[in-house]
Amino acid sequence: MPDVESIRPFGPARSTIKGSPLSKEEIQEYDDFFKASCYLCLGMIYLKDNPLLREPLKKEHLKTRLLGHFGSAPGQIFTYMHFNRLIKKYDLDAYFVSGPGHGAPAVLSQSYLEGVYSEVYPSKGQDMDGLQRFFKYFSFPGGTGSHATPETPGSIHEGGELGYSISHAFGSVFDHPNLIALTMVGDGEAETGPLATSWHSNKFLNPITDGAVLPVLHLNGYKINNPTVLARIPHKELEALFVGYGWQPYFVEGDEVESMHQAMAATLERCVEEIRSFQKKARDSGQAFRPKWPMVILRSPKGWTGPRKLDDNYLAGFWRSHQVPITDPAKNPAHLKVLEDWMRSYEPDRLWDKEGRPDPKLRKLCPDGHRRMSANPVTNGGQLKKPLKMPDFRNYALEVEHPASDKVSGMVNMARFLKDVIIQNQNTFRLFGPDETESNKLAGIYEGGKKVWMGEYFEEDANGGNLSMAGRVMEMLSEHTVEGWLEGYILSGRHGMLNSYEPFIHVIDSMVNQHCKWIEKCLEVDWRVKIASLNILLTAVVWRQDHNGFTHQDPGFLDVVANKSPEVVRIYLPPDGNCLLSVMDHCLRSSNYVNVVVSDKQEHLQYLDMESAIEHCTKGIGIWQQFSTDAGHEPDLVMASAGDVSTHESIAAVDLLLHHFPELRIRFVNCVDLFKLIHPVDHPHGLKDAEWCALFTKDKPIIFNFHSYPWMVHRLTYKRPGSANLHVRGYKEKGNIDTPLELAIRNSTDRFSLAMDALDRMPNLGNRGSAARESLLNAQIKARNKAFEEGMDPPELVDWTWKRESPASRGKMSVP
Amino acid sequence: MPDVESIRPFGPARSTIKGSPLSKEEIQEYDDFFKASCYLCLGMIYLKDNPLLREPLKKEHLKTRLLGHFGSAPGQIFTYMHFNRLIKKYDLDAYFVSGPGHGAPAVLSQSYLEGVYSEVYPSKGQDMDGLQRFFKYFSFPGGTGSHATPETPGSIHEGGELGYSISHAFGSVFDHPNLIALTMVGDGEAETGPLATSWHSNKFLNPITDGAVLPVLHLNGYKINNPTVLARIPHKELEALFVGYGWQPYFVEGDEVESMHQAMAATLERCVEEIRSFQKKARDSGQAFRPKWPMVILRSPKGWTGPRKLDDNYLAGFWRSHQVPITDPAKNPAHLKVLEDWMRSYEPDRLWDKEGRPDPKLRKLCPDGHRRMSANPVTNGGQLKKPLKMPDFRNYALEVEHPASDKVSGMVNMARFLKDVIIQNQNTFRLFGPDETESNKLAGIYEGGKKVWMGEYFEEDANGGNLSMAGRVMEMLSEHTVEGWLEGYILSGRHGMLNSYEPFIHVIDSMVNQHCKWIEKCLEVDWRVKIASLNILLTAVVWRQDHNGFTHQDPGFLDVVANKSPEVVRIYLPPDGNCLLSVMDHCLRSSNYVNVVVSDKQEHLQYLDMESAIEHCTKGIGIWQQFSTDAGHEPDLVMASAGDVSTHESIAAVDLLLHHFPELRIRFVNCVDLFKLIHPVDHPHGLKDAEWCALFTKDKPIIFNFHSYPWMVHRLTYKRPGSANLHVRGYKEKGNIDTPLELAIRNSTDRFSLAMDALDRMPNLGNRGSAARESLLNAQIKARNKAFEEGMDPPELVDWTWKRESPASRGKMSVP
Repeated sequence: MPDVESIRPFGPARSTIKGSPLSKEEIQEYDDFFKASCYLCLGMIYLKDNPLLREPLKKEHLKTRLLGHFGSAPGQIFTYMHFNRLIKKYDLDAYFVSGPGHGAPAVLSQSYLEGVYSEVYPSKGQDMDGLQRFFKYFSFPGGTGSHATPETPGSIHEGGELGYSISHAFGSVFDHPNLIALTMVGDGEAETGPLATSWHSNKFLNPITDGAVLPVLHLNGYKINNPTVLARIPHKELEALFVGYGWQPYFVEGDEVESMHQAMAATLERCVEEIRSFQKKARDSGQAFRPKWPMVILRSPKGWTGPRKLDDNYLAGFWRSHQVPITDPAKNPAHLKVLEDWMRSYEPDRLWDKEGRPDPKLRKLCPDGHRRMSANPVTNGGQLKKPLKMPDFRNYALEVEHPASDKVSGMVNMARFLKDVIIQNQNTFRLFGPDETESNKLAGIYEGGKKVWMGEYFEEDANGGNLSMAGRVMEMLSEHTVEGWLEGYILSGRHGMLNSYEPFIHVIDSMVNQHCKWIEKCLEVDWRVKIASLNILLTAVVWRQDHNGFTHQDPGFLDVVANKSPEVVRIYLPPDGNCLLSVMDHCLRSSNYVNVVVSDKQEHLQYLDMESAIEHCTKGIGIWQQFSTDAGHEPDLVMASAGDVSTHESIAAVDLLLHHFPELRIRFVNCVDLFKLIHPVDHPHGLKDAEWCALFTKDKPIIFNFHSYPWMVHRLTYKRPGSANLHVRGYKEKGNIDTPLELAIRNSTDRFSLAMDALDRMPNLGNRGSAARESLLNAQIKARNKAFEEGMDPPELVDWTWKRESPASRGKMSVP
Repeated sequence: MPDVESIRPFGPARSTIKGSPLSKEEIQEYDDFFKASCYLCLGMIYLKDNPLLREPLKKEHLKTRLLGHFGSAPGQIFTYMHFNRLIKKYDLDAYFVSGPGHGAPAVLSQSYLEGVYSEVYPSKGQDMDGLQRFFKYFSFPGGTGSHATPETPGSIHEGGELGYSISHAFGSVFDHPNLIALTMVGDGEAETGPLATSWHSNKFLNPITDGAVLPVLHLNGYKINNPTVLARIPHKELEALFVGYGWQPYFVEGDEVESMHQAMAATLERCVEEIRSFQKKARDSGQAFRPKWPMVILRSPKGWTGPRKLDDNYLAGFWRSHQVPITDPAKNPAHLKVLEDWMRSYEPDRLWDKEGRPDPKLRKLCPDGHRRMSANPVTNGGQLKKPLKMPDFRNYALEVEHPASDKVSGMVNMARFLKDVIIQNQNTFRLFGPDETESNKLAGIYEGGKKVWMGEYFEEDANGGNLSMAGRVMEMLSEHTVEGWLEGYILSGRHGMLNSYEPFIHVIDSMVNQHCKWIEKCLEVDWRVKIASLNILLTAVVWRQDHNGFTHQDPGFLDVVANKSPEVVRIYLPPDGNCLLSVMDHCLRSSNYVNVVVSDKQEHLQYLDMESAIEHCTKGIGIWQQFSTDAGHEPDLVMASAGDVSTHESIAAVDLLLHHFPELRIRFVNCVDLFKLIHPVDHPHGLKDAEWCALFTKDKPIIFNFHSYPWMVHRLTYKRPGSANLHVRGYKEKGNIDTPLELAIRNSTDRFSLAMDALDRMPNLGNRGSAARESLLNAQIKARNKAFEEGMDPPELVDWTWKRESPASRGKMSVP
């Protein structure tokens, strides 16, 4: 066969695995199932009435607006239904991930024929009326989406944005040793970066403790309007690519339906046999290894079984069948006839009875109960989720004898807590990160669970490698992959956390965005049970990225998150180590949120003992009396902060101000829970305006030192009384290779700038104010010059602690 | 050799290509060069004084804070210097892309030895003082970054964030037929999604018109704290992977320096020969084809040439050599000695003279002038950039007889303009997009240049495929890859534009972020010449993603962009087709910005004739008198908009209000240039407060209909006089499968909600106001129900046009 012919999806089946597992009768049965399924897809796209074509098709039966995608549906159906045979034969625990874009018609058709859809949505029963509604409300306002949205039974992967099918699938099978995720990957999707690297997930899967992913790469040849890369490279290259990714690829190629049935049945069966045999070998021996897991490369035409041409244009086997294949049947009678003939070629008359019930023979090919892939409980993970066994976080408390006097890394300390979370939840909690866990000072957790590594081992690894085939920490230098794993892990009923450098979390803005949308929509789907929150710990923060330079300075992920629905997003900026513990405990216990926690990994001053920290974090925002001098009176000035480094500089600024004006009534406010700032109309955590005024006053100047871009606070507070008195400082995109002090000065967030800022808002201080301002400016210039000469900040600044007598007791803060 | 041994980076060279191109003397010379380079790297990391160790090393000579990364440097140097031999031999036009993280010491050492660094920075000359400063200011406050930052001669790829080396390199060689981008890829970086798919760029490179990328995958085995995936898979898998990606991989593996010199020299020479031979074949025959381009897989130990162990811990050949290899020489005298011995092993006494001048023999191994890779003009692309030949955009004007009366797709029209831009700039302009150009209604541009496709061709492609080996449009379903190509293309002196669906542009948030940082920092580097702007056209906007559902609804990219430096970001929301042309013309002529243009692709009402559009876009914001009734008086109400769909609904709301209250003095303000809204202190485009008040008044209610998340406008305007009267409506993350009307209603951006909103702000309208409000609400409910029943919005809403007599002349707007 000439080279190009060998990569065209036409003709009798060509397949790596030979064999004829199906009898003639079975071929007929599967072919009927295939036809019924394809018919359902066209029905969804086209019909609002006359669902089984019991009358000649007229334009009145067509939906007014035609929407939906047919192109990838036949190939997906073909895979799904042939896998059903093996689920029945081997009593497999499996579910289906639909990777190709707009793949909903395929999976909806299967759920409908399995009976699951009608069980979940009784108005769409297996009768004429139910079918009519099933069709009409597809891609219809208020109806069913054209992706595998949360409303779709059996889906944990919507696929609106492409690229995450494989990483989601892997996440779902970790610690689910008997689960198989049958994962369809579109050849369009396969071009994305996240998908291209996620094939390497096989280096992180343990055949003893984890289940298996069976990928079916669907080369239907076209994206929206272009051929796909993988469908247009020589056969040998394609095979080499997947061998190189560590898989054993089995090809099934062609479009002649009968031989394709045999080839697909034989190939999938071989895959299941191999998966089971690898698992048995590992489990019997107790010795994990990395098998060459099987995968299928299915090359079938886009729009398979549809007309090859419409007028002079290619349709099936070309990109024109991507979406609605015939776009104008209502206006073009000839095209209406083509559509009708096409639909009738699937023999709806024979495959449904008069009442609109599908032939019972179709149902017989499906598994039963929870073995039906669209009814697998793993796809409604909240059902399986058990609360984490939580060690008491108070046991890991940092002692705070005097507030702001000792420096400790709250992160190193928190690792002790996370270590025990790992130990106590050996099959239901994993920690994820892109090769930064140790750098993020969380290495302590490796005592609870090492890093999963199924690649080759070298002798050096024993020397601090912390690798294990049975680890609990997942690290790969792909934020996309680890985030996808984590999503799959929690969507299928478990718990986890991602840790990442703050600046590079933008790499997965879009993934987090999509996950927020998924869990927000789940709230509207009554049969969906809440899953564990997606916890994201950001560290290596902007203010300590001085030496890494400008590329490592971006705290703007918070803006992306804050745009998502208030129902599902939470942002915490714990100011110290005990608050970090309290916040993290809360996040790990919570459901259905995306929790973002920002905390630097370096050593920092500690402010609150554990009791106070719990109280403060529970309130989310409060006055810190130990750094305040207003003693319950109306203050002259409010100094406020959110974020650990920001809080440090803000308190140091208070110290400077009190040095010059000991009589000043300063109120210090710290915010942990960022959404406290917003109006309660816009977020359930929002303070009432009266509460806001009790903290921030109605008319006094507020100098707010913020961790991230300052305008974010303005976006949150524009409705607040006295918001014109709110002066926010934060990262203004000014940075380079600087010392921490220099970086802060460039962004006006250092103690000197904050104190001068405060003086500028209190003109009543008169000449004394001006003199103090000048003195502060001189001190700033001096410190700055010193830092530049030494290459390090002056010790007297770095080692600054709070030495004033606090009005409140040790380490305490109080909340009004 | 046992399997695991075959993938360890030790021992005499193992290489695919045999050969001994170097004489014994040459080996010695290259080895000296290698030593001198490695010495420079250690010097940068450690020394502030005693740069050539003319005295015994004491802790006083060490920098106070040790920063920098050694791990990948030797491998990078090794590659760079052996390629120099071929540049000289074949007079190659080449430059170097440093992919591995923190690779600056490697490239800085090369630039220094080439003499370029001292030419660019004379204070860091090739003498003792210069060398001391060169060392001291590396990773020092205010000094040189540890990435290949814009300050680095020869760099167009900073590599702070990993994953883009290959796509940047490809972008730079498109339409540069003689250029070779020698591209070092780190094995950490290689795990990222963007990098993993970017290997497929070879399916988009034409050997006649484009240059070549020579990737050197550097398997040094470790990331920060982990082994890398590609370094720990069997040799056969690794080879298969790159064969599968379509490359011809040549291995060079080992750590015995002498044999490695020969192997690397022979291998790189073979690569150059093959590149030249493929190019010659294609160019001589005029027949483009896709060769199996050569690449090198260099397996050498991390921290190569350093001590294998420090105390009991592995150092070279292990992850501990990633960053500062010996961390405590100032505190540990034994370690100080190890460091000194190590540095002296590079023989600085022999390789530098008394004055600190490098041995002239070293310089002899470098090419001259612009052939030095760190002096290649392509790496300061602004030098090469020529202005685009611009067709007069006025020639593509849409006729607007009556404002808001006819619907046209401004996008389809703009494609005519872009087509001619392509035709007139055949070697200097390309259009990029992730398989959405046709869907985005830009297919008209294919008449100017087809899509580049170097994969296999099928007969169907002639049927509307628009593919060509010599195309001008670059489409791959990887936003990362196309964005990376575009960045490489403009960084090396050309022009281009990316088009994308609005919701999925978040996929490249982080890339755009990093590009903003690059061009912002370039402004501070006086020898960098400005490059063309990065133009991003966003379409398929949120308000017309009703049928695609919630996953396709996200206009929040603007928030990410707005956080970047005002020096480099611009956001435009042209309200109609003529404004789109005017804005696009402006963007294509501009330099050093990231321009984001948001414009829907569907048919929309047109408001301004070309003359008015130019005036409006030049001002950026203005009163539209044709939809205003204040006739120069103080208005009762300001209706404002930014964005095409938003403007449409806003004008329709004016129409509704005037229906109920013909006497109302309404002012209509439209904003094209989003940064007009911000205070001029924060962005050069910002209106002065007086100008703001002239448009928006000081105290009248403003109903602002915004394209994106509404709080973004508050973030921009919190300082404005009367900002409490500003009521912004926009996307509030409410959506599903809805009609456009329903989607707008859920987010309060439809005409009815806007009109009701306005009435709520004018209590003085009394009972008439309440009655009108009720009538509007009823009309809204009626329309909503109708849409839900029909599955389409009521035609009377969809087909609404402005029928009132306008006070100003046809299609005109005026600016105060």
